[in-house]
Amino acid sequence: MDLTTLNELTYGLYIITSVDQGRCNGFTADAVFQAGANPPTIGVCIKKDNLTHDFISKNQVFAVSILADTAPAELIRHWGLRSGRQEDKCVDTEYKTGATGCHLITKDTLGAIECKVINAFDAVSHTIFLGEVVSAETFSGGEPLTYAQYRKNIKPALKQTDSKGGAMKKYRCVVCDYIYDPAAGDPDSGIAPGTPFEKIPDTWVCPICQVDKSNFEPLD
Amino acid sequence: MDLTTLNELTYGLYIITSVDQGRCNGFTADAVFQAGANPPTIGVCIKKDNLTHDFISKNQVFAVSILADTAPAELIRHWGLRSGRQEDKCVDTEYKTGATGCHLITKDTLGAIECKVINAFDAVSHTIFLGEVVSAETFSGGEPLTYAQYRKNIKPALKQTDSKGGAMKKYRCVVCDYIYDPAAGDPDSGIAPGTPFEKIPDTWVCPICQVDKSNFEPLD
Repeated sequence: MDLTTLNELTYGLYIITSVDQGRCNGFTADAVFQAGANPPTIGVCIKKDNLTHDFISKNQVFAVSILADTAPAELIRHWGLRSGRQEDKCVDTEYKTGATGCHLITKDTLGAIECKVINAFDAVSHTIFLGEVVSAETFSGGEPLTYAQYRKNIKPALKQTDSKGGAMKKYRCVVCDYIYDPAAGDPDSGIAPGTPFEKIPDTWVCPICQVDKSNFEPLD
Repeated sequence: MDLTTLNELTYGLYIITSVDQGRCNGFTADAVFQAGANPPTIGVCIKKDNLTHDFISKNQVFAVSILADTAPAELIRHWGLRSGRQEDKCVDTEYKTGATGCHLITKDTLGAIECKVINAFDAVSHTIFLGEVVSAETFSGGEPLTYAQYRKNIKPALKQTDSKGGAMKKYRCVVCDYIYDPAAGDPDSGIAPGTPFEKIPDTWVCPICQVDKSNFEPLD
């Protein structure tokens, strides 16, 4: 079986946000699709471990901000390679609050769609949330960022800046691109901040896609 | 609410096929996404009225053939603008039979992914089928066709050839692009082949997205 064929599936890149008691969280995602036209419904597929997953489950709203192809690597790093469990990602971000209370990212995006959850489906490691569109707004007329462009242009830039890190090397999951940062550790899985990758027990698995340590490579 | 924002969601274009008692059916789709990595799972969102939906529900297998950006308009017309209830779409198509028994389209495609259904979710007008990947194969190294390229390059070509039709005009749904062809009618909704659009009762709705007749425009 040649799983690289799955790399040919085409996606846009989005920041999916939700809210809990006024606090925003969000992350960079690609699995967003229109699931019906009447009423307009949007499906998003989210890893169960994500803090945003918890917010959506609890408060039944989410927003999809559509990244522009001019979005800088730093924006992807900000939303995609950090956990909201350690910091408030909405700090230093340009946003406005939508009708659902979710934060809509207004810089480097084309527009945003807000949804009220009407159903949630168990997809093994992920949940598929089905939302009825309650608000949609176009911010600008540029082109959307695609996952292919991310792989070609933004990932190399992220890799370059990652390599400027400290003495303890970061490691990247070759399956899902999760980056283990020794400075942050993986507290959800019992790995304290400051733990070098080499000291993580062999029983540890990638918090995103659950593959084992042998699937990680050091960042140059 | 500006629903044109939904046009900024990025998709690839695929031919989703299934099989029933050795007979293939399939259609052109965009809502395909990876839903998990371990095991690899694929989600597809399919209108309940589609014949392919019936085949997948009954036989619990589907295949996703990934269209190349060089795919001709005629291929899209063949799989996308006809119903398998009236004809066998696999006739005159280059394919091979995969491990699941589904037909994999081998011309103008980059590769194909076959899945065994592990769950199905009700999404109002559609069903989201969740499939575990049982086979994946890359056919060629080209670039995938995107929905944006379809809108820009292939839709105008389809419109041009549509306009060469007979005396009875075809009409296009402005919401979902379904084309009503008087020669085919809409037998599933009681509209006999040969019925001009103007003679369809006002109670009729688009068989794809359920909007009423006022949302249709004549093809030039």
